[in-house]
This record gives sequence, C-alpha cells and structure tokens, in this order.
Amino acid sequence: MPKEINESMQLWGGRFSQETNPIMSEFNRSFPDGKLMYREDLQGTAAYVLALHTAGILTADELQEINRGLEVILTEWESGSFQEKSGDEDIHTANERRLTEIVGKVGGKVHTGRSRNDQVSTDVRLYARKHLLLARQYLKDLITCLVHRARDEIDVLMPGYTHLQRAQPIRWAHLLSSYATQLTDDLQRLEMVLNITNRCPLGAGALAGNPYQIDRQLLADQLGFAQVIGNSLMVVGDRGFVTDSLYWGFSVASHLSRMAEDLILYSTAEFGFVKLSDAYSTGSSLMPQKKNPDSLELLRGKCGRLFGNLAGFMMTVKGLPSTYNKDLAEDKRALFDTLATIQNSLQISTGVFSTLSINTGKMRSALSTDMLATDLADYLVRKGVPFRECHNIVGRVVNAADELKYSGIDILSLEELKAIDDRFLEDVHIVFDFESSVEKKSARGGTARSAVIEQLDFIESKIADL
Amino acid sequence: MPKEINESMQLWGGRFSQETNPIMSEFNRSFPDGKLMYREDLQGTAAYVLALHTAGILTADELQEINRGLEVILTEWESGSFQEKSGDEDIHTANERRLTEIVGKVGGKVHTGRSRNDQVSTDVRLYARKHLLLARQYLKDLITCLVHRARDEIDVLMPGYTHLQRAQPIRWAHLLSSYATQLTDDLQRLEMVLNITNRCPLGAGALAGNPYQIDRQLLADQLGFAQVIGNSLMVVGDRGFVTDSLYWGFSVASHLSRMAEDLILYSTAEFGFVKLSDAYSTGSSLMPQKKNPDSLELLRGKCGRLFGNLAGFMMTVKGLPSTYNKDLAEDKRALFDTLATIQNSLQISTGVFSTLSINTGKMRSALSTDMLATDLADYLVRKGVPFRECHNIVGRVVNAADELKYSGIDILSLEELKAIDDRFLEDVHIVFDFESSVEKKSARGGTARSAVIEQLDFIESKIADL
Amino acid sequence: MPKEINESMQLWGGRFSQETNPIMSEFNRSFPDGKLMYREDLQGTAAYVLALHTAGILTADELQEINRGLEVILTEWESGSFQEKSGDEDIHTANERRLTEIVGKVGGKVHTGRSRNDQVSTDVRLYARKHLLLARQYLKDLITCLVHRARDEIDVLMPGYTHLQRAQPIRWAHLLSSYATQLTDDLQRLEMVLNITNRCPLGAGALAGNPYQIDRQLLADQLGFAQVIGNSLMVVGDRGFVTDSLYWGFSVASHLSRMAEDLILYSTAEFGFVKLSDAYSTGSSLMPQKKNPDSLELLRGKCGRLFGNLAGFMMTVKGLPSTYNKDLAEDKRALFDTLATIQNSLQISTGVFSTLSINTGKMRSALSTDMLATDLADYLVRKGVPFRECHNIVGRVVNAADELKYSGIDILSLEELKAIDDRFLEDVHIVFDFESSVEKKSARGGTARSAVIEQLDFIESKIADL
Amino acid sequence: MPKEINESMQLWGGRFSQETNPIMSEFNRSFPDGKLMYREDLQGTAAYVLALHTAGILTADELQEINRGLEVILTEWESGSFQEKSGDEDIHTANERRLTEIVGKVGGKVHTGRSRNDQVSTDVRLYARKHLLLARQYLKDLITCLVHRARDEIDVLMPGYTHLQRAQPIRWAHLLSSYATQLTDDLQRLEMVLNITNRCPLGAGALAGNPYQIDRQLLADQLGFAQVIGNSLMVVGDRGFVTDSLYWGFSVASHLSRMAEDLILYSTAEFGFVKLSDAYSTGSSLMPQKKNPDSLELLRGKCGRLFGNLAGFMMTVKGLPSTYNKDLAEDKRALFDTLATIQNSLQISTGVFSTLSINTGKMRSALSTDMLATDLADYLVRKGVPFRECHNIVGRVVNAADELKYSGIDILSLEELKAIDDRFLEDVHIVFDFESSVEKKSARGGTARSAVIEQLDFIESKIADL
Repeated sequence: MPKEINESMQLWGGRFSQETNPIMSEFNRSFPDGKLMYREDLQGTAAYVLALHTAGILTADELQEINRGLEVILTEWESGSFQEKSGDEDIHTANERRLTEIVGKVGGKVHTGRSRNDQVSTDVRLYARKHLLLARQYLKDLITCLVHRARDEIDVLMPGYTHLQRAQPIRWAHLLSSYATQLTDDLQRLEMVLNITNRCPLGAGALAGNPYQIDRQLLADQLGFAQVIGNSLMVVGDRGFVTDSLYWGFSVASHLSRMAEDLILYSTAEFGFVKLSDAYSTGSSLMPQKKNPDSLELLRGKCGRLFGNLAGFMMTVKGLPSTYNKDLAEDKRALFDTLATIQNSLQISTGVFSTLSINTGKMRSALSTDMLATDLADYLVRKGVPFRECHNIVGRVVNAADELKYSGIDILSLEELKAIDDRFLEDVHIVFDFESSVEKKSARGGTARSAVIEQLDFIESKIADL
Repeated sequence: MPKEINESMQLWGGRFSQETNPIMSEFNRSFPDGKLMYREDLQGTAAYVLALHTAGILTADELQEINRGLEVILTEWESGSFQEKSGDEDIHTANERRLTEIVGKVGGKVHTGRSRNDQVSTDVRLYARKHLLLARQYLKDLITCLVHRARDEIDVLMPGYTHLQRAQPIRWAHLLSSYATQLTDDLQRLEMVLNITNRCPLGAGALAGNPYQIDRQLLADQLGFAQVIGNSLMVVGDRGFVTDSLYWGFSVASHLSRMAEDLILYSTAEFGFVKLSDAYSTGSSLMPQKKNPDSLELLRGKCGRLFGNLAGFMMTVKGLPSTYNKDLAEDKRALFDTLATIQNSLQISTGVFSTLSINTGKMRSALSTDMLATDLADYLVRKGVPFRECHNIVGRVVNAADELKYSGIDILSLEELKAIDDRFLEDVHIVFDFESSVEKKSARGGTARSAVIEQLDFIESKIADL
Repeated sequence: MPKEINESMQLWGGRFSQETNPIMSEFNRSFPDGKLMYREDLQGTAAYVLALHTAGILTADELQEINRGLEVILTEWESGSFQEKSGDEDIHTANERRLTEIVGKVGGKVHTGRSRNDQVSTDVRLYARKHLLLARQYLKDLITCLVHRARDEIDVLMPGYTHLQRAQPIRWAHLLSSYATQLTDDLQRLEMVLNITNRCPLGAGALAGNPYQIDRQLLADQLGFAQVIGNSLMVVGDRGFVTDSLYWGFSVASHLSRMAEDLILYSTAEFGFVKLSDAYSTGSSLMPQKKNPDSLELLRGKCGRLFGNLAGFMMTVKGLPSTYNKDLAEDKRALFDTLATIQNSLQISTGVFSTLSINTGKMRSALSTDMLATDLADYLVRKGVPFRECHNIVGRVVNAADELKYSGIDILSLEELKAIDDRFLEDVHIVFDFESSVEKKSARGGTARSAVIEQLDFIESKIADL
Repeated sequence: MPKEINESMQLWGGRFSQETNPIMSEFNRSFPDGKLMYREDLQGTAAYVLALHTAGILTADELQEINRGLEVILTEWESGSFQEKSGDEDIHTANERRLTEIVGKVGGKVHTGRSRNDQVSTDVRLYARKHLLLARQYLKDLITCLVHRARDEIDVLMPGYTHLQRAQPIRWAHLLSSYATQLTDDLQRLEMVLNITNRCPLGAGALAGNPYQIDRQLLADQLGFAQVIGNSLMVVGDRGFVTDSLYWGFSVASHLSRMAEDLILYSTAEFGFVKLSDAYSTGSSLMPQKKNPDSLELLRGKCGRLFGNLAGFMMTVKGLPSTYNKDLAEDKRALFDTLATIQNSLQISTGVFSTLSINTGKMRSALSTDMLATDLADYLVRKGVPFRECHNIVGRVVNAADELKYSGIDILSLEELKAIDDRFLEDVHIVFDFESSVEKKSARGGTARSAVIEQLDFIESKIADL
C-alpha cells in the first residue's frame, strides 16, 4: 500500500470522495510562504523522530534511515534541487512526501502522534526565533552606530524643537542619544517576545496531547526551546507569540518612522542640517536637480506596512473558537514579511547614519536667541521671582523685541529690559550664550556634556546585557 | 549618447556620483509588484505618445516607430520572453529601457513632460479599474447564485437567531436573501469607488502640470477614463482611490466573514443544518474522521488580511506632506493583494453555495415552540392587551413550562394558561404553528413567502442596473 | 398591572429570576452615548405609533394620547428636566418608561411588533443622517474658504515640493486648490454614505419582520428616509452604514492631516511661509517665546483617533453571526465620536485658513533656480533633443554649478553651458524666470493662472451640485 | 502681579495678543480625561517641590505652605468640592490655578524648571501603573477562578474541537486550563509593560533637561519609580509605555474574546453545554422567551474597542517628529478607556465563570465514536503499521460506517473491520472508550488527569511569582 500513499499527495485524503476544487486548492495553499521554513520543518521532524525512538515507536535502524532521508532533503533544498509537486499543499506535506520517496514506507511513521497543528507551531516558532535574533543583532548595530556618532559629534549644537517650533538649544548628540534610548527599550521588549516565542509546542498532537508518552522535555532540549508549553489546546490554537513579534516589529518601525521624519525635515533645503549619502538617495525621472531621501521615506512608509501585518492578524484571531481554526494559516504571510522588513529597515537605518553628513554651520546658525527665553526666566527665578511671574515677564520681553523689529531678545538694551521689569540687572547678558545654556542642564538626562556622556555609557552597558 | 543612456539603468542617475547601496536598491525596488501592471504601463505610454504627437512634440514617423516598439514589448511580456535587467527598479524603467533598446534614441522622447509620478498613478488606476470590474462580475455571480438558491428552497423553514439564541422561525431563503441584500449594497458602494478611480491623472507631470499644452481630455478618452483629474498636485499625491478600493474589498470580505461564520456553525455536528461539498473541505493529517470547512475559515480569516492591507496603507498616508512622497510606493502591495484576494473569495463563496447541501430535517427539528412566544404575545395584543403587558405574561408562561419540565410552551393546557392570564381562550393553540408564524410577517422585508419573493425580485432588478 | 410594569425598569425582565450583577449592568449600559439620540428615539416612536394606528392597532384617541406624552418627554429633554432612573439601560427604555408614567397603560402599546433591534437602527440612522448633513455643510464651508483664498492670492508663487525637496515653482493658489479638490472628492464619497444610511429599518421587528401589516413605506416617508430596507435580518444585523460613516470621517480627517502637516512645516522658523493666528495657537508652560500650532497638530493627531473608531468597529463586526448580536452596541461610541470630531475638525480648519497670514517674501525667496532644471531640459526638448538625453545633460549642469559653488544654475555662463552641451544658445537665459515657468504649465490641472482659475470654477460648480 | 497671574487662566498666555477661538479652546481641552489624574498630578507636584527645596529653590516654609495647599486641593477633589473654571484647559492648569488661589504668589514657583511636558508624562505613568496593577489583580482572580473550577470538575469529559468539528475527547478542565495558560502569558507580558512604564520622567523639563541640578533619583524614589528615564527628549516625546499598555489590554481582550466565543457557542440550544447565570444575561424587548449571553457578546465586542484604542494611537504617533507634539494629547482617551474596560472585562469574566452551570450530560452525549478514529489508528500503529497507512485505513473505516448508516465506527463488526484491513483483531473494541482515550494522552500538556493536574499546579505556582 505504500504506493497508494505516495500517490495521494494530501496527508488527509482517505475519507474524501470528491476532488478539491482547483481555486480552492489555490486558496488553501500555504506553500509559497511555508517554503521559507524548510529547514525548521526538517529540524522539527529530526527532533520528533528521536523522541519516537526513545518512546519505542521507531527502531534504531528506522531512526537512522529517516535521518538519512532528512539530510538528503536538506541538501536538496539548499542546492535548489528540491522538486516541488502540485499536491504539496504546505511545506510539511512536501517534506513528508519527499521523505517517503527517499526512504519508503518507514517515512509514513514520522507523523505518528504528531499533527500538522503542533508541527506548524514548532516550525513557525523556530523560524521566528532565528529571525528575531538576527533582528536583535541589526538593532544592536544601529544603536552602536548612533552611540559612536554621538560621541564623535558631541560638540555640535543645534535647535531642539517641540511642536516643530524652535524651543531650546540641544546637542546633536543628545538627539542621537534619544534615538538610541528608545531603541534600547525595544531590545528590552524583545526579551519578552523571545521568552514567549522560545517555547516548545511539539508533542501536543492535533489538540489533545500525545498518546505515546513522548518526552516533551527531550523535544524542547533538542530544539533549543527554553520551556515546554503546558497545555495542548493552547499549543494548537494560540498565536500570541506571532502577535507579540508583529507588535515588536511595529514598535521598532514606529521609532524608525519618527527618526526618519526628523531626518527628512533636516535634509530639506529649508533646514539643511543633514545631507544624505547618494547611496541612500534617488533622483527624479523628470527633474534633473532632485535628490530625494527615498530611504527615509520608505522607512517611514513601511511603518504602515508593518502595522497592516499586525492589525490584520489581530483581526483574524479575534473571536475565533479555541484550538486550531484554519484562519490561523494567515499568520505566516504577516509574520514573515514583518521579520524581513524590519531586518532590512534596521540595516538601511544603520547605513543612513553611517554615511550621513551634517552641516554644523547650518545647525548653529539656526540657533536664535528667542530660544534662550527660558534661560532669561531662570535668571529671574534665581533672583527669587516666582517662575509663573518670570514666564509672564519674559513673554513681554519677547513681544517687545518683536515690536521693535529686533532680530532677537538679546538686542534689547538693559534700559529696555528694565522698562519691563526692574529686576533685570547688568549681568543679564551672560544669559545669551548657547553653550552655557546647554551646559546648565546638567541634571540626569539633560543636554550638558557630562549628562550626554552618562547616557551613552548607560546605553552601551545596557545593550551588552540584552 | 544613446549608448550612455542605455547603460544607465536608472531614469534619474545624471547628477549622482555614488552608487546606490545594494540593500537600498532592494528596499527601493517596486518591480515584483509593479510587473503585474506591464500592460497598463504600455497602454499609458501609447496614449501619451499620441498626445505628444498631437502637441507637435513627436513626428508621425516617430509615433509609428514608438508604437511598433510598444507592440514588441507587449508581445514579449505576454509570451514570457521579456528579459528583466538588474537595474529595472520599476515597471516604467523596464519598459522604457526596453523601448530604447528596440527603437533607439527616439525612445528617449516618451518621457517628455511626463513623470513617473503621473505615470504610476495612471498605471495603478487602469489596473484597479480592470480588477474592480472583474470583482464586480464575481460579486454579481454570487448574488445571482444566492437568489436562485433562495427561490428554489423557499419552502424550507429554520430557526432564526439573535445573540445566537433561537429567536423566531424564518425561511432559509430569507437568510440567503439577507446575504444577497448586503452584497447588493456593496455593488452600490462600488459605483462610488469606480467613479473616483476612473479618472485620468496623465499629463500632470511631476507635480506642477505639463508645459507642452498636452490635451488631457484626449488622454482620458484614449484610456477610457470618465474625467480628467483637475489639479496636478492632487494627481501625484492623492491615493484616495486606493484607500476606497481597499475599503471596498474589506466591506465585501466583512460580509463574507459573517456568512462564513453562519455556515461554519451550521455545519457543526451540533447544528447539522448544512454539509459542505468535499470540494470545499479538507481533512486532518492526524484525525482520519475529520472533514473541516477550510474554505469558510479562510473566507473568515482573510477578512483580517484585507483589513491589514487597508489599515496599513491608511497609516502610511496619514500625515504625509502634499504631493508625492516615496511612502506612497507601498500602495501596490496592499492594493494588488486585496484585488486578487477578493476575487478569489467571491469565487470560492459562489462555489460553496453552489455545492452546499442542506438538511431540511435538522433545520425543522430545531424549531422549538418557545420560538413562538412572541406569537403568543401577539395573540393577546389582538385582544387589546398592551404589548408590554403581554410580554410580561408570556414571560411567565415560558417560566411555567420550564418549571413543569414541559418540552415546550405548547404543552401547557388551557387551564394552566388561564391560571396565568384569563384572557387566553380556546383558540390559543392555533398560535403554535411555524408556517403560519412565518406567513404572518407579510410586511415588506418579512419572512412571508410573498415578502421574500418581493425581496428577490428587487435584488435581481437592482443588480441588473449596477 | 401597569404598576408592575412601571416597576420593572427593564423591557425584558419577565422570565428572569436572578438580579443582574451590578458590574454587568454597567457593562451593558449604553445610556450615556444613547442619550444623544433622545430626539431621534422620540421621532421614531411617533412615526411608529402613526403606523400602528393606520394598521388598526391603536385608536385615534390612543394615538393622540401617546403623541401628547411624546411631546412632554421632548420638552423635558430639551429643558434639561428629564429625570433619569437607575434602571434606564438605554434611551429606548428611558423614553418608554417615562411615556408610561405620563400616559399610563397605553404607553405599553408602543412596542407592539417593534423590537429594540429595529428601533436602535432607526435612531442611529436618523442621528447619523443629521450629523453627516451638518458635516457636509462644514465641509462645503471649508472648500469655499479655500477657493476664495486661492482666488485672492493667485499671484503668490512658492516652491512646490516632492519628497519634501524643492521641485518646481507653483502658485500658492494651486496648493489651496489641491486641498479643495481632494475635499470635493469627499463630498462625492458622502453621497454614497448618505444613500446607504438614509434607509428605513423600522418595521423589521426583532429579526423576522412585522406581523401587523405595518406600512413600512409610510414609516419611511414619515421619517424622511429615501427607501425601505428590503430584508428584516439585514436590518437588525447590518451596520454597513456605520462603517461607511466612520470610513468617510477618516477619509476627510486623512486629508486634513496632510494639509495640517504642510502648514506645520510652513509655519516653522525654517520655512516661515505662513503664520497662524493666535486664535489657533497656544504657548508653552515653560518657554515664554513659544507659539505652537496646536490646532494643526490636533487636526493631524485626531486622524489617528478617527482611524481607531473605524478600525475598532471593523474588528467588532468581523466574523459575527448574522442578525443582531450585542457586540453591535459598540457602534455608538465610535460613530458619535467620529461625527462630533469631524465637525469640529472642519470648523477648526476653516478657522485656520480664514485667519492664516502668509509671508509672500519668504515664499518667493525660497524659489531657487535649480527648481528650473526641468525648464532647462524643456529648452533642449524644443530643440529636438530626446528628453532622456536632456535630463542627463541638465543633471550635469546641476553638478557643474555645485562644483563651481555657484548659488544656482542660472549663474553658469553660456560658455560653461556650451562646454556641457553645445546646443545651449544665447536664448537659454530666458528659461530662468519663475513666472514664465509657472505660466507654461497651461494644460488642464497645471499652474498657469488660467488653469488654476479653471480648477476653482470647476470646484465651485461641483459643490453647488453636491 | 499675582492678581494678573491669577486672572490669566492659561499657563502660557504672556506673549499672545489675540483670544483663542472658542471652538479651538474646546478642541484643545484635555480636561475631561485629564481630571481622572487629579491625584497623580498632585503627587507629582509634591515630589517636585521637595526636589526644588533640596535644590535650594524653595525654602522650608515655602515647601510647607505649598504642601498645605496641595492637601487642601486633594481634599477638595475627593469630596467633590473642587470648583472647575472655564479656563482650566488641563488638570495641571487647574491644580496650579487653585494652588495659587490658596497659597498665593508662592504657588507660582512650583513650575520652576518643570514643563507640562515632563509633568504630563509623570501623571500618565503614575495613573497607568496604578491601573495596570489593579488589572493584574483582576487577572489573577480570573486565573485562580479558572484553576479552582478545573480542579473541581476534572472528571467531566466533553468533545474537543478543531475547525469547530468534533475532533477528540478532552476534559472540560483541560479547556479551562488552556484559558488559564493563555492568561498566564498575559501576566508575563505585563511584567515587561510595567518595567517600561514604571520609570521617572520628571525633571526632564520641556525637552532639554533641568537647569536647577534637580535630583532625579530623589524624584523617582518619591514616586516609587524603579528607574530614571535617561534622555530628556525621549521623556517628552516617547509614548512607548502607552502603546505597550494598549497592546497588553488588547492581548488580554483577545484571549477573552475567544473564551467568550466558546461559551456563546456552548450556550446555544444546539450545543447546550453551559448555562449562563441570569446575573450575566439579558432578555429581549420583543421576544419573551429569550435569554441572551450579553455579557459574553460584550466581552467579544469590546475586543474591537480595545483594538481601536491601540490602532488609533499607533497611527497618531507614526511619523511624528521627535519630542513633544500636541498630537500626543490623544494618548489619554485611548489609555484610560482601555484600562477601565479591561478591568471591567476581567471582573465580568470572573463573574461569568463563578456562576456558570455546566450540563455534563449534554457534554457526554456529544462524544461520538468517530472522535476515536485517531485512537483506532494508534491501535494499528502499535502493531507496527506506519501511521500514514493507518490514517488511510481508518479513513476507509469511517467511510464504511457512513455508507452502512451506522451511528458510529464502533458499530462495525470485527468482520467488517477485517474486510478493510486484516490487522484488526478481537482486542480492537477496547479502543472505543472515551475515558481511556483521554487518559492515554499522559505526556505533558495532555488530557490525562495527571497531566491536567500538573498544568494547574504549574499555573498556580506561576501566578504566585508574577
């Protein structure tokens, strides 16, 4: 009867009398996405047959023969010589079909007590783990690049903005450090995602568990999973680890989208603070003078795409009955795209920051003295004036300079200041210095050189741990 | 210099001195999705060169030569012999590159006054229009299938549910008609989407318009667009038609998801009202007895996927500056997937309904007399009792039957009823008839045979108009 | 027995023996949102009792008495004297409870053959229609404001951007017209939404229809609905009109978010093109010099909120079984918030544009001659050079000016130009004129004065029709 | 001048000459949501003034006086006697305005070096922490309830489903344990969310840091924050903790939505496995017999609402420039609603499970012998037949029983079985026992009594740690 089995290309065809409708076959096929997991599928099977052997279901010879077959299949995939057949509805079917071709009837034993329900969860978790770890490395590379650049360019001052209006002077390094700080949070979030993902589903069967006293701890150890998932219904029905991974990808992308927005603005002719390398820019098909920050726009735009992957899958899962429902097959398209896109996005970001040139002159000349209005208020505070009153007084100073068409509040004479409030004295003009304004914010997290270096040191020690 | 132009595979490379980073090239490449529009891209170019000729930019000979080249390229695509090159960053570049290879230097004239910004909007609109019209046809097929089935099976009664609790008896045909009615609304929504989509962007240039007095009405006519888009900045920056199309796909999918949910429930062992054809079912790799409604689960699950396409693109567009930004290149992945998925989903749905068998016995036996409680209240209403009081009385009737462990409220004797309210008389037992309950709802939209036929007639006349 | 009915504050308590859990009562209560519909609920009841009278269920005296009660309740709501009671779980219960207090036992007849399922759909549709019409008026006001401003300031030139890089000169009026054009599309989308919304659900009962031969056309006419919804199951279960309304609100908000983004950028110190009125700005609690474009940021931010309303409700509806399920009660929070927010957003936008001042000097001085590179290519095109070659030549012109540190490409001498390509002649310098560049784009939709006026005329005629 | 300050109800009005537009004031007002944080706002101020004192900005007397004022305000809020004024645009303004009324001019000192930007982040973090901890407790209560119920009802068997088709017999306790297992993952996710949330923003100023050498560690300690946020730009611009909280709320709600879906199905007349307490059900306004599982439908429906809160805020944040932008004020509506809704949802869930009655007879009678088909395959596996072949054989057994119209596969005689495959022997009929089928799945995570108890023990030990 092995022949009959080989002919039937579906793992479940026994009791069916009508052919599947061809559009339906297509609708049902997860193969194109699933193929990416060929290696994980073979890994999972190798671990499972070892456990079947330990449980006395497979002899040592059978085990050896199956393992030989799995090796052959791996080589075929890696060399590109694996021949797909039209009935391969998913990667599990394709690999089992091929195994049976290679090792014969004994290949039909690998599915003993195993279901595609626990198998696919295993494959997807292994795949997600591998790619999350890759993404972690790319993320650390980006953070390191930001920290190095911040150390190198710690002297550069630029305007800090809130509401995109010039607010107070900051260091360029302080801005870079804020990016690195946000991304370090993402490393921490990733710990949770990896913890949830790196768990062993194998041995849960279709939904109810495994009747062969399979050693699930052995399975977990073989596959490098940190723990065994405790409930078989949960194994086959839960996709929390997918949603967590998709959320994490979005979180990183959201941070990159804001970073990209900053740099897009800073690379306009009007701001002119930064210049993208040609390697990360493109031109216009019509306008010969254009140099467009396409890399940054794509980083920003792909945040939407990653959100779509997350939001779509969240909706798919909502309100499903417990355990496995076919709806869950939508997990792979979303997850695989997010994992690939976030890796690319991180590498592009590192490339952009490695090659970006900054225009320190433009940054400096964008510092206007109205950005020291708060420093002027501080001046009064230190003379004992309640801050709320200082704020009001300096508001009037700003208006006075506007009305007199002065280029800045530093142009007002002492007399003019005194006319507004007589607590302004000779020493007031020392306020109007950008360097000292920045250095005054020496409390933790501030713009003073020492405070920025403290941040960078902290980030570096943190990423070494994560 | 044509050689030099041929060598440069990017349309914009003139002023750039550094090579594009390879990961960046990949990140930037829209070719895999864009290729689906090869025909539309050639159509758009054919219309544009005619307009360039009319505007005196191309001679008749040049026009003829270019058209010859476009024909060759079309043939290459259709026969699968088009040779892609590594520098083909998008379909527009690929086609223009190939055109110049075929017709030489004059190929360099097709982009005169045209930008990829108006070109891509043209291609995507043509593509969307074609596939929306296909989807419309599949949608009409589904509605027609539902209407025919409803006419054929108008005699079949079944429980109507609210909150998934048995509520009142209905006709199976009434349920099918409710699906058809909802989907007819989608046909109406599609009118709007097509109206917004079927407009001509060509001739808007990169953002500011066309300096060659190009005749945009001619372009619209050539391409079958119903109107010209009135503002060039809008042309290149607006993707409202994409969002509308994505919303429409979701709206249909959302209706299909609810229909699928009904049928999944009705095909459980517990309900047992319907049986899916093997052609739309699959089995289990572990459990030999299983027959699973995968087609329906996928219809339900893909609603999430279509939502993801919509939600992701909505986020991409939010807060972008006016005109073209590269973020918009994310439109194609979302749009093309939605258009393909909704077409498949509609065809699968029609297939499911064409081959579904119903178990009229199970439907009938699920009708329990508590579902006639409202009819019993109506009985009292017609004797002049205010409805709110009737509701209360019948609530007590239901409780009495429960307490007496009767199988239904029709088992209560007249005496038992009178003990609750003495306005119950001999004639009360005529209430307990499912057929007459259904026939009593003869007001428009109700379950009476005449009312259902009226609905079906209305739907058929409606879809003939849309 | 009326007393008993009055005491029971729930419309459905008859058969229940245990009290509802208090947290559950709270969870279940839709009253705070529902109260906004007090008028629509009374309107719906007034129409329904007329139909009950016509159907012979209510006498003329009963009808008159009930109408008197409804008038009293309306007056109470409008004067703020309506007394809520703790058992009023929704607006329907509250109004019916109060009616029975006022008119006695006959109040218990208004629910004859009516269910909260058709009642709530009626109320929500009436409410949505009213507020969509209000929003339409505010939208027309905004478009009119944009058109007037565009006419007034048609002479003002500014840079047009793509990718936020300076691209080609445009008119400020052209930009305003692009906003108006996008928003006019939203007026057209609204036609569809109103068409779907403005339909009569009343008379559909709980799910199966109405057994009293109620005249649903009469109900529709009384309530100003354009048609009767054809299927009773659809009436109680479908919320397509809600999703359409939420989508429409998002579509408008998305357009406003991009408009806001433009103005936020243009009101930075770096661009300096526009200055918001104080009336639409706020300051900083710490930094006395700040003037922040809060109105614009909120317009941009609330786009997310409206998306949340849409996305959340889409998820709620996905995969529900047919007909009414309590999940649908989530419709009101989303819908009412979107309708209110979009009305506010439109009024704020009109306020912003009515009071915004522009800095024509800054706009003009931001025009740099590299923005005429395409015009220089056109110069060569008109001498017969293929555009692709022109693009390449001008790319080299731009680079030459860069290398020579010239402030623009217009500084290059004829000799320097000829060194790049000898088809440049004496007349080349007439290219470098922003006015004539803008005027050359005279094809429809372009930046020429005539083309812009044509657009504005078109918009005005369009909004008169919609 | 204090009088002047008191009159100005905005914290930033000094330099503004025009009045804010009234619709704009409304649009800008965050007060209704913000009021919920009155206590946290006062807490934050108390910590800050202590730090100002330590830094030498406030004298001991001033500190004491301000603290007295803060106490008064707290009492006013708690007793409901706090008088709001029309200019109170947010809770910070309201509290500072009131403080100055109580303590006079010195109240104007509390904002020294503090901005609403670091203040609001502090308030929201304190508020989120409090409510996340409350939600954690409700979540633990629910898990405990599930575990207890599982222990009590471990003997009850019921059908396990995949694809909503009967699959294999399971224990009811195994299903409850799967809910508890999923929710225990949510406890673990919450650890991460609390870690990110419980960090001190105070002392970051408007964006650049604090110039008064404020001791940020002291602030963190006073407010119970586990660490200080390292970068001031990050403090004011990052809302990752909000998104994490919203994601967490959605994750829990998504699990509850699936649990609710199960119970809704199980409480249909057709399944009949469970019966909701009246306390968590409601009735119909029209149909007297109805008892609807509204609590469960709301649990399922509110999953959409929580998704809307998350999705909307994700969109709001996407692509914003660094640091504070007013768009971020949308955080509170989303966050506060999610925190309240998830607490209610968890309490309702616990209530539902505490009061639910199960129908063990219905559960048992829904076990059909086709659910033992896999056991029959196992029978052959243990005789050495490869599983894939067994699957095929048993598929034919199932078909044979169908064709013979047998009520189950256990009815087939040994001869009939042998006709299909002669490896079936006398002992085959011991397969057809549900208890032993369930007990055979004794590997970890399976349905055997010992395996279920192991799960429950694990969950209880886990929640003690989290």
